[in-house]
Amino acid sequence: MSLNDIPGKGVCAPKGFTASGVIAGLKSEGEKLDLALIVSDRDASVAGAFTTNAAAAPPVRLNRERVASGVTRGVVANSGCANSFTGKQGFEDAVAMAAKAAGAVGTPHDSFLACSTGHIGTFLPMEKIKKGINKAADLLSRSDDAAAHAIMTTDTVSKKFAASHSSGFVIGGIAKGAGMISPRLSVPHATMLAFITTDAEADAALLRSVLADAVANSFNRLIVDGDRSTNDTVLLLANGASGIRPSEEELAAAVQAACRALAEAIAADGEGATKLASIVVKGAASEEEAERAARGVANSLLVKTMLYGADANWGRVAAALGQTGVSADFDRISVSIAGHELLSEGVAAPDSAVEAARKVMRTDQKVEISCDLFAGPAEWEILTCDISPEYVELNAKYEV
Amino acid sequence: MSLNDIPGKGVCAPKGFTASGVIAGLKSEGEKLDLALIVSDRDASVAGAFTTNAAAAPPVRLNRERVASGVTRGVVANSGCANSFTGKQGFEDAVAMAAKAAGAVGTPHDSFLACSTGHIGTFLPMEKIKKGINKAADLLSRSDDAAAHAIMTTDTVSKKFAASHSSGFVIGGIAKGAGMISPRLSVPHATMLAFITTDAEADAALLRSVLADAVANSFNRLIVDGDRSTNDTVLLLANGASGIRPSEEELAAAVQAACRALAEAIAADGEGATKLASIVVKGAASEEEAERAARGVANSLLVKTMLYGADANWGRVAAALGQTGVSADFDRISVSIAGHELLSEGVAAPDSAVEAARKVMRTDQKVEISCDLFAGPAEWEILTCDISPEYVELNAKYEV
Repeated sequence: MSLNDIPGKGVCAPKGFTASGVIAGLKSEGEKLDLALIVSDRDASVAGAFTTNAAAAPPVRLNRERVASGVTRGVVANSGCANSFTGKQGFEDAVAMAAKAAGAVGTPHDSFLACSTGHIGTFLPMEKIKKGINKAADLLSRSDDAAAHAIMTTDTVSKKFAASHSSGFVIGGIAKGAGMISPRLSVPHATMLAFITTDAEADAALLRSVLADAVANSFNRLIVDGDRSTNDTVLLLANGASGIRPSEEELAAAVQAACRALAEAIAADGEGATKLASIVVKGAASEEEAERAARGVANSLLVKTMLYGADANWGRVAAALGQTGVSADFDRISVSIAGHELLSEGVAAPDSAVEAARKVMRTDQKVEISCDLFAGPAEWEILTCDISPEYVELNAKYEV
Repeated sequence: MSLNDIPGKGVCAPKGFTASGVIAGLKSEGEKLDLALIVSDRDASVAGAFTTNAAAAPPVRLNRERVASGVTRGVVANSGCANSFTGKQGFEDAVAMAAKAAGAVGTPHDSFLACSTGHIGTFLPMEKIKKGINKAADLLSRSDDAAAHAIMTTDTVSKKFAASHSSGFVIGGIAKGAGMISPRLSVPHATMLAFITTDAEADAALLRSVLADAVANSFNRLIVDGDRSTNDTVLLLANGASGIRPSEEELAAAVQAACRALAEAIAADGEGATKLASIVVKGAASEEEAERAARGVANSLLVKTMLYGADANWGRVAAALGQTGVSADFDRISVSIAGHELLSEGVAAPDSAVEAARKVMRTDQKVEISCDLFAGPAEWEILTCDISPEYVELNAKYEV
């Protein structure tokens, strides 16, 4: 591997990037960092990956438009308010927030992107936002600690990643989102945000391509409960400050490493759930069907409660596969849980195998569920978690 | 209304039908009725509606084939074993079970349908089944009480319906399934079975048409957790013994009444969940999209936990709509909860409205969630329930 970790660094590890984080007063808790700036000292190529929720929040819609131009100078992001379901005014607020950041650092008014995470259905307090941006512009530095904290909502730790590539460029990133294995990802304000920077030279088309692949193999393979935030955003900025133009393979490997590391950091910040499950579907007719089947199993409430109960109830897995409508030879399909094949050639294994699987599930925190559909060559894996009574209690509470 | 209820009666209310229920010894609990026969004294036209789960159990596959012929003499059904995921032997067992029933009542070997509900992944104990069928054939009578009990699994009461039509024919039915508002529908053996009989004259094509409509407006509008059984079955038999040939409208009204009554009886047998919710989606581009949107909201874990928490969190409803991918004008959509419009023209109502909705949710057992997508004229409604910590605990337990 030609990538070397740079411990403790994030978006400011690559040359030409500065960042800051301030208390703008957006969070009900008061004295918490809640507004971040990430700035490139020159035009950066940019690509983005956004929520597939059709009710995308106004800042997401703005960023989609701006990222299409392929160029940006930086990102302003706030926590405490998602600016989601805020209508036309919400869009105007996002435009004004981005313009204010651009003005504060002296770049063209449409040169910034704006991200928001937090409570849905309230307007951005624009006076606080503007004052916060002024403060943040004054505090820009080569440290990304405050920025990484300022985007946190229910996260318990900040998430950073940085690495240098042997060819001479550096990649870094920060992210927020409280976990795949956490009930908290599920609260609608628990948006996932990830900002990745690099001083490599790369045009926007290449960034789009490598980012799409990397997201597909990292963030898009985590699932808690099937509910998708209206604000999920991943941004990749490349400012070329290193003077190095990596090959597509080199850049792809670096971006993939950053996305994986940040996604795993999100997963590791979970709590409340008691089991982590890897769902692997093999033998699907197509990759799309393999994904649909894996998501169907991961989303099944009966599978989630079975994980919580440490029960190797393969019938629930097989029934969940059945209702996804994917091609499968149900007379031949197999289901393995915790390393024990419990359904084979469409017929159940003896009770002793089920009992052996249960024994593993009771002790191991991570459980693998593997299915073969006997319908083709495609395979897909997804990570999910169980559902516990604590998950229900936590998500039943109203909290901002 | 030209239909008059016949209290306390079921499938034996129409002329020419007999039934029985016996203890065949299939249930682990021992002394419970677990095998039922329903017999027509002449050929009956038949139509069926079956699970859309692609992993349909062998008896469902057999019934699909046989119902296509449009003629049957009766149904044999057992509880305690679903004969699901039992491969080729499972299919042969279903054929043998049906043939045994036909033989016991002296009709052609392929003239019966066979239904099973209970544990997934175990073979039917064919010796017990055969002995049970012999007993059941000896006990056939004009009482349907024992048959209604013999198909129960986690149900706490049996479900029956019967009514006479002013034109002179009678319709009756029995069903099993423990409830929309019950966590128990979700356990994979909590299959929904409904058998409806009538002494009206009607050909199979007409039965198919009226049954499809009736099921779409009754059983198919109940949802607990999105998991569909491999064995769900509704059968409609018309033996013409009344000599009355009703119009399509008359027959449709009668079948609709039977399906609604049985579906409501299933709903009423629930427990564990604390709230019943009606999800109404209006303004959809098509009925298909209205249904998809309503199911998306009903299936959202965040909406279910919000119902449990009696929280009027419209953001979760709106986000759930967004991720269904249906056409909607998200700048204009509205969401009402418990009679209070909380999102209107895409913008949130004041906190006082949310507080008012919460107050209603804390006291009322039934909550209406209504959404307008502003994308067209179509509307759809579905009933669902909340998810409680008790649901998780119950479904985490392994029980047959």
